[in-house]
Amino acid sequence: MNRQDTRFMAMALALGRRGQGQCWPNPSVGCVIVRNGRVVGRGWTQPGGRPHAETEAIRRAGDLAQGATAYVSLEPCAHHGRTPPCCDALIAAGIARVVAPFEDSDARVAGQGFGKLRDHGTEVTVGVLAGQAARDHAGFFLRTEQGRPMVTLKLAGSFDGRIATATGQSQWITGPEARRVVHGLRARHDAVMVGAGTARADDPELTVRDMGVPRQPVRIVVSRHLDLPLLGKLARSARQTPLWICHGETADPERVKAWDGLGATLLPCASDGMQLDAGDILQHLGRAGLTRVFCEGGGSLAASLLAGDLVDELVGFTAGLVIGAEGLPSVGALGLDGLDSATRFELVETRRVGADVLHRWRRAL
Amino acid sequence: MNRQDTRFMAMALALGRRGQGQCWPNPSVGCVIVRNGRVVGRGWTQPGGRPHAETEAIRRAGDLAQGATAYVSLEPCAHHGRTPPCCDALIAAGIARVVAPFEDSDARVAGQGFGKLRDHGTEVTVGVLAGQAARDHAGFFLRTEQGRPMVTLKLAGSFDGRIATATGQSQWITGPEARRVVHGLRARHDAVMVGAGTARADDPELTVRDMGVPRQPVRIVVSRHLDLPLLGKLARSARQTPLWICHGETADPERVKAWDGLGATLLPCASDGMQLDAGDILQHLGRAGLTRVFCEGGGSLAASLLAGDLVDELVGFTAGLVIGAEGLPSVGALGLDGLDSATRFELVETRRVGADVLHRWRRAL
Repeated sequence: MNRQDTRFMAMALALGRRGQGQCWPNPSVGCVIVRNGRVVGRGWTQPGGRPHAETEAIRRAGDLAQGATAYVSLEPCAHHGRTPPCCDALIAAGIARVVAPFEDSDARVAGQGFGKLRDHGTEVTVGVLAGQAARDHAGFFLRTEQGRPMVTLKLAGSFDGRIATATGQSQWITGPEARRVVHGLRARHDAVMVGAGTARADDPELTVRDMGVPRQPVRIVVSRHLDLPLLGKLARSARQTPLWICHGETADPERVKAWDGLGATLLPCASDGMQLDAGDILQHLGRAGLTRVFCEGGGSLAASLLAGDLVDELVGFTAGLVIGAEGLPSVGALGLDGLDSATRFELVETRRVGADVLHRWRRAL
Repeated sequence: MNRQDTRFMAMALALGRRGQGQCWPNPSVGCVIVRNGRVVGRGWTQPGGRPHAETEAIRRAGDLAQGATAYVSLEPCAHHGRTPPCCDALIAAGIARVVAPFEDSDARVAGQGFGKLRDHGTEVTVGVLAGQAARDHAGFFLRTEQGRPMVTLKLAGSFDGRIATATGQSQWITGPEARRVVHGLRARHDAVMVGAGTARADDPELTVRDMGVPRQPVRIVVSRHLDLPLLGKLARSARQTPLWICHGETADPERVKAWDGLGATLLPCASDGMQLDAGDILQHLGRAGLTRVFCEGGGSLAASLLAGDLVDELVGFTAGLVIGAEGLPSVGALGLDGLDSATRFELVETRRVGADVLHRWRRAL
């Protein structure tokens, strides 16, 4: 590994992040082709998962790919899926060296891509920016290894951590700039998820607006009893933008039929005493192909996810006003034994967004 | 006003802030003497309020003060107090021009300093960085104009705004770097104030440690019933570091006697139904000379101050862990009618401090 490798791999990773939220169930990969220190081709996984990043970058590099180095943010595939193997494409293009952060954990790929490349005399370097790549591909790996998508939990509240007044007023605690950042975050996830209380209180659309995304994230509502308004915005738009409802197995069959008729996808999940089992919900979402889920509360759903240690990233927006203890808490009861038993998240960044503070945290790897 | 004036006034203001917490009941002033574009003398109000900034700067400038410009962060005094008037000193030193942000609001000074200088042929420029100066002298002006000190409210809590677990565990939610910043903030205030619950739960010292401050801030505990532990750290140290207790007029006379015997200063304050009247507490503190009070909670005291619209700055420390709704809220019940009736604070800065996020806010002027 040298500084040039690090620099171009950072570029490949940045390109790969462009496809986040657009490629599931595929990983979002970036590729940079470099010849004599100059970038001659760039590519990333296209919406829907095809074409792959390598194919895109090779196409753009044209003849200049001959003898060049390809920086790929994940091991190139060696198997025939819906597209021919990227390894074959790299070999055919005459790529002399391939640099990657680590092997793919997909059993169909793991090590085989590198093996095939080496067999054809292509030099392979592994281990560049592996930490950052693990973050970027966390959703893909979690789904492959644990069957669940990665979860980002967003909470937007007052200085004292309240998401609404005692009477339920929540519009608007944070400002328009923060809401715009939220839309950007939605766009980089495969799905947006809220609890039934939030769906009832806010009548949200849960779509990405004004960002020209090629593919809207799936909208997920968690509602044990399926007691959601049949005349709300979600119900009205279920045929335009995917709406999945995670409900309890004992939910009223009439309601199940009604939502099915509206065009929603119904996912019956296991119940864990008083509420739906957050772990089982995520397993359902993983089986359905989701790799990155953006949860926007409310407090009960946030608490279930946190109590199950299922939150990978936290995103907070804090506004400059105080609501007080009667206000709705951002996170419900957790049943924590003590401070030592709480998951510690490490700070990624904090910055001003309009009048509010944005702070992003992630679980220590 | 020109760029040079702005630059040197910013320097004078920065010097003035060095004395914050050390000069009460006097304002903390900074002074820079500039001759031919070069700084020839600097000074700021010394601990206890004397010597004044101007005297210090003139002394350091020596003969170079002749014909120079003095940048002073507040109108120089024209009256004989415990020190001779600074105006006389500036005139005697041969200062040709005085630049200040605005007039002093102290009736003994207001406009008279400038008048005296002009009468002696000194050029006077007013209106440079008045906004920043108003912030810096907010405590002094609030005391002069409204009889109360400025109040900074600090809350250090979890991602979801809790300051302790359900069982009261609060050590440590935030890290050592955040606690060190808190000591720095204490040092820049005249007093540190907590509610009785915090005093009982944490047995704090409320001193500034490891910063070499010449004068410790006054320690204030608000306890309506004066039910504070007589064997705690505050009680033991009341003779070394000032301890003031704001209590209800109906507090047990035996307890009043006991705390008086321990060396505490007792301030009987008006009661407002269930709790002490925060406005009356601050009037008492203003009469006692305090200009800047740093309140560190707990939730009830924070709520009283906020409900009375008596908080001028908010300082938040947010840690990367979630405690959940059973945890102790950072602010008690406020009785807010709706979001519109909440005071909006504007963000001053947000940054990483160790593992935590610091965010500072201030009331819009």
